[in-house]
Amino acid sequence: MSTVLILDPAADAKAVGGALKRLGQWASLLEGPPRAYRLDPPSAPVTRAALAAVPGVAQVLVPASPHPRVDGQAHRAVPFGPVAVGGDAPPVFIAGPCSVESLQTAHEAAAAAAHAGARLLRGGAYKPRTSPYSFQGKGSDALGWLREAADAHGLGVVTEVLSEPTVDAVAGAADVLQVGSRNMQNFALLKAVGAAGMPVLLKRAMAATLEEWLLAGEYLLDAGAPSVVFCERGIKGFDPQTRNLLDLGAVAVLAHAMGQPVLVDPSHATGRRDLVPPLTAAALAAGAAGVMVEYHPDPAQALSDGPQALDAAGLAAVAAHFPGSAR
Amino acid sequence: MSTVLILDPAADAKAVGGALKRLGQWASLLEGPPRAYRLDPPSAPVTRAALAAVPGVAQVLVPASPHPRVDGQAHRAVPFGPVAVGGDAPPVFIAGPCSVESLQTAHEAAAAAAHAGARLLRGGAYKPRTSPYSFQGKGSDALGWLREAADAHGLGVVTEVLSEPTVDAVAGAADVLQVGSRNMQNFALLKAVGAAGMPVLLKRAMAATLEEWLLAGEYLLDAGAPSVVFCERGIKGFDPQTRNLLDLGAVAVLAHAMGQPVLVDPSHATGRRDLVPPLTAAALAAGAAGVMVEYHPDPAQALSDGPQALDAAGLAAVAAHFPGSAR
Amino acid sequence: MSTVLILDPAADAKAVGGALKRLGQWASLLEGPPRAYRLDPPSAPVTRAALAAVPGVAQVLVPASPHPRVDGQAHRAVPFGPVAVGGDAPPVFIAGPCSVESLQTAHEAAAAAAHAGARLLRGGAYKPRTSPYSFQGKGSDALGWLREAADAHGLGVVTEVLSEPTVDAVAGAADVLQVGSRNMQNFALLKAVGAAGMPVLLKRAMAATLEEWLLAGEYLLDAGAPSVVFCERGIKGFDPQTRNLLDLGAVAVLAHAMGQPVLVDPSHATGRRDLVPPLTAAALAAGAAGVMVEYHPDPAQALSDGPQALDAAGLAAVAAHFPGSAR
Amino acid sequence: MSTVLILDPAADAKAVGGALKRLGQWASLLEGPPRAYRLDPPSAPVTRAALAAVPGVAQVLVPASPHPRVDGQAHRAVPFGPVAVGGDAPPVFIAGPCSVESLQTAHEAAAAAAHAGARLLRGGAYKPRTSPYSFQGKGSDALGWLREAADAHGLGVVTEVLSEPTVDAVAGAADVLQVGSRNMQNFALLKAVGAAGMPVLLKRAMAATLEEWLLAGEYLLDAGAPSVVFCERGIKGFDPQTRNLLDLGAVAVLAHAMGQPVLVDPSHATGRRDLVPPLTAAALAAGAAGVMVEYHPDPAQALSDGPQALDAAGLAAVAAHFPGSAR
Repeated sequence: MSTVLILDPAADAKAVGGALKRLGQWASLLEGPPRAYRLDPPSAPVTRAALAAVPGVAQVLVPASPHPRVDGQAHRAVPFGPVAVGGDAPPVFIAGPCSVESLQTAHEAAAAAAHAGARLLRGGAYKPRTSPYSFQGKGSDALGWLREAADAHGLGVVTEVLSEPTVDAVAGAADVLQVGSRNMQNFALLKAVGAAGMPVLLKRAMAATLEEWLLAGEYLLDAGAPSVVFCERGIKGFDPQTRNLLDLGAVAVLAHAMGQPVLVDPSHATGRRDLVPPLTAAALAAGAAGVMVEYHPDPAQALSDGPQALDAAGLAAVAAHFPGSAR
Repeated sequence: MSTVLILDPAADAKAVGGALKRLGQWASLLEGPPRAYRLDPPSAPVTRAALAAVPGVAQVLVPASPHPRVDGQAHRAVPFGPVAVGGDAPPVFIAGPCSVESLQTAHEAAAAAAHAGARLLRGGAYKPRTSPYSFQGKGSDALGWLREAADAHGLGVVTEVLSEPTVDAVAGAADVLQVGSRNMQNFALLKAVGAAGMPVLLKRAMAATLEEWLLAGEYLLDAGAPSVVFCERGIKGFDPQTRNLLDLGAVAVLAHAMGQPVLVDPSHATGRRDLVPPLTAAALAAGAAGVMVEYHPDPAQALSDGPQALDAAGLAAVAAHFPGSAR
Repeated sequence: MSTVLILDPAADAKAVGGALKRLGQWASLLEGPPRAYRLDPPSAPVTRAALAAVPGVAQVLVPASPHPRVDGQAHRAVPFGPVAVGGDAPPVFIAGPCSVESLQTAHEAAAAAAHAGARLLRGGAYKPRTSPYSFQGKGSDALGWLREAADAHGLGVVTEVLSEPTVDAVAGAADVLQVGSRNMQNFALLKAVGAAGMPVLLKRAMAATLEEWLLAGEYLLDAGAPSVVFCERGIKGFDPQTRNLLDLGAVAVLAHAMGQPVLVDPSHATGRRDLVPPLTAAALAAGAAGVMVEYHPDPAQALSDGPQALDAAGLAAVAAHFPGSAR
Repeated sequence: MSTVLILDPAADAKAVGGALKRLGQWASLLEGPPRAYRLDPPSAPVTRAALAAVPGVAQVLVPASPHPRVDGQAHRAVPFGPVAVGGDAPPVFIAGPCSVESLQTAHEAAAAAAHAGARLLRGGAYKPRTSPYSFQGKGSDALGWLREAADAHGLGVVTEVLSEPTVDAVAGAADVLQVGSRNMQNFALLKAVGAAGMPVLLKRAMAATLEEWLLAGEYLLDAGAPSVVFCERGIKGFDPQTRNLLDLGAVAVLAHAMGQPVLVDPSHATGRRDLVPPLTAAALAAGAAGVMVEYHPDPAQALSDGPQALDAAGLAAVAAHFPGSAR
């Protein structure tokens, strides 16, 4: 991105432009002298060598990557609790309740998740809620329930960290630390979470560009996280029929053009359980390395986000999209 | 959508709320008397009978549908030139050049499209271009080339109508009339296109809500179109890595919750040929009844949108996502 | 925009960067050789000479402007029916009903508009409506009423053209032809409207970039329009409290950085009459060359957009923001 | 918002609809029995009594306000360090550098701000930066410089808090605590900042609805803040000509329809110093209770956001928009 190609004085600018089209590049001609082509997104990935080899191109000017550590984890599977994610690893399935409400419901959810083929249990102990008067999560008690339930069913635990002072407590109970959308650019939290030295699931903020998202990952890796797995969960949209706007184009860019491990959360993306199964399939087809969904043993009793929680039938429908499962 | 439930005076509002969660409904309580629940998107589809059956619900108030004709074509395959689209019909594959530049390239494109399993040939005779100084299409000549090339390879033709005075000419050469994004709410054109009595491919405008899109379809059906097939081609987004923002959540809503026939154009959605194959797969997984892609025998020579046109290898990669093909 | 600066081999890149900051430029360094700075929006306007004068800059590469005819009308007042708009001309005030419903209401509206200081009467004869079942306007009859009412009160007429076949009829009754948001990229209509040889009021599409908007103006000027006045009317937003999202930053860019004549329609921007007076004041302060508002003698009887129409008190409140009026 | 009106069985629904238009209400009819009107945004403010008085309306059902504490500070001036903001208080002017880089530049900035009529000095000690490799602020040293410089010129101090552990240190140096856009829904920080018992300047997140923004204010007030002043600083937009998309419609809603104290930051909204003066004027005209701008004694030397910082001439141009100043 942002590359400039300086042309030989004798170059045929139209021929160079054709060659750039063949390479999938959107280019605009700059008057000189010297004449130059400026390459802009949404151009496809291309190597510097391929550009330099175009007849008529004299020099290739590129900016340094702003996120070298994120680039460094590209095109391979990275550690993610009990599994590896990305690269050639099989897609990972994560399920569990929006919030962890009791030891009993945690056990029920873990049993169902494990039965469906999930490898990690999700569940919120500390919940970010839009209103101060909404249920805020069961806190440290819930961390214990979550760990106990996951262990009983051979699952890893991924749960969200909401504040610096609780990083250690959450890290003690979890295999993967989640940073939520609303904290994607809470840089103090990113530094503290990275310093915990654990894999991180980094959700995209409501209106983050891909570069802002990658740079948030750079904060985590720079602070000490061994791996960052990105999670698309829908950005702010203008149509009310879905809670958010699921951006599977972004997933395809991260997965295919950048080689990054990226998951999808179709539950928050849509806010409606009827759309979670087809969008799970779509996410995997777009290149997602897995999905994370909300499941509740009895959605009618859920203390948060009940209308979007899968019931048992929905969980089975989602599970069916994972290859090779016995479900 | 927009439903209001009036409660029995003696109803347990919390129990009613739980039952609504079980039905996938997002509800907010209105103080009375009488007390009521207002249901809002992104609630899942639900029947009036299911709501009326919730204990404690006294009355169910719903608005009339604003698009009865569109509702009338739901949950079944509709005519679309040589094939049927939606319902139980197999997914349809449409390919061809951005613009039809010569009889020769039309033949080459048709041959490649037919070989890849496409059933319709796409191609622009009249091109909507952002700049008045860009190539505007070959016009009526191109209509003839398109028809001849399609016929030679057993394909149907879908091509865009840009203006009322050319509706008849385009209708004479095409099997399906396309209305482009920039004309989705060109109501004069919708009326003229509908009056031609042919199936229509209706692209979504850059910032159209689903209801605005469906109402544009209602214009077409009301004016005489036998069927409207919707086509998601990306809405305006803020991230430069893709040309537009592909909204597969909207596709899932139309396909699964509304039963409408909906296609996806991953070429315009992304503007990059490297992402067209995975997003074709994702579109079909999300519920799309088919895809339409841009292919050019030699992208370097394309007069418009070259960087996003598939080459032969890309076309084969897309074709591989269609079930049952011999490709 | 899109400029690239090639540095002298011996240049101090940091010093060059500082000088660019002083010029209001956002710049990113490209590795070479040669080293270069790429300037990107939202940089402030700057002349090529100022960039060339920065010590260490060897060459300045700029793309040609894509809209030379629009550039040609910059920084001066342009004809707009009975008045001139932009440049040093006083701000223009346009008022009238959403749709022209009868000769009587047209007269009442014209009288009120003239009394309030308006110089042009607005009113729809052909109405673009989201639903085919909504009132579509009184058509050619309304054109006559509008002309008669305007003439009786010494006003010019601005009214929307919805389709090519009606351009002549509308041009016969109007002083300024309006192209609506939904038709901003209806290129066939732009060509036909431009060919009528009259001033045009060009509304911004729901999700148009400024460049797309300017290029739509280029279509009009290239086709023969003597002047194009731009009109911001709110773009698609995600917050329901206003009907659209009024983009006064765009108004400031057009007015101050580009010298283009630009009006604001606060009625459609907000959909609520209570916000029209303060946003009229804000529009003028941001650099708008005038405003256009909806007024109805009796909003309760309005056949379209009644809740956003100003009543008499609202019209007076708007008028008070125009300098030097006797109101 | 979200109100439902139940009609008398004998009511004339059309007449009721007309009366609602006269009250500025967007309403949709729900079939019954009973028949009802559902009122939706962007309806203008209206009292329950006015709705109940419409002939034919039998009952008015409204939801409880989700942010009673924010409602409680409406329509009056609230404490804001050395001044009061909102209500009948004169508009407040805040200026200062993006980041506080040295005691000397803090003094220079404070002198210039005071000379221009500012009442508070802004400046970042802890800076939220998109990249981990960008300058992160001078930290606690900068807090001291800021306080000393402000005191020397009779100014209050507003500065951003980035993390819970630094709330006390920042509170010790500041008169107003700022919560930035990226932390608007960092609920742990909101609770900690509220508990400090100081006035808060709460910036709107990049994609926050007004209700989400108000609820973030509710967190602060609920936790102990004596006042919350909202600050619009531009939301995420799709046009590159401005850094963000300034939403003055939102400012008008907060100021006029809700009576809340709301400031505008035109520097971050646009990212270009040339647009700060006109948008300052526009903000005040729209109802803003003041503005906050970035000023640097020498923008070429600024360690962050230099291209958007006002120089001395720009500061004077902004100051000229404040009524009654001696500047």
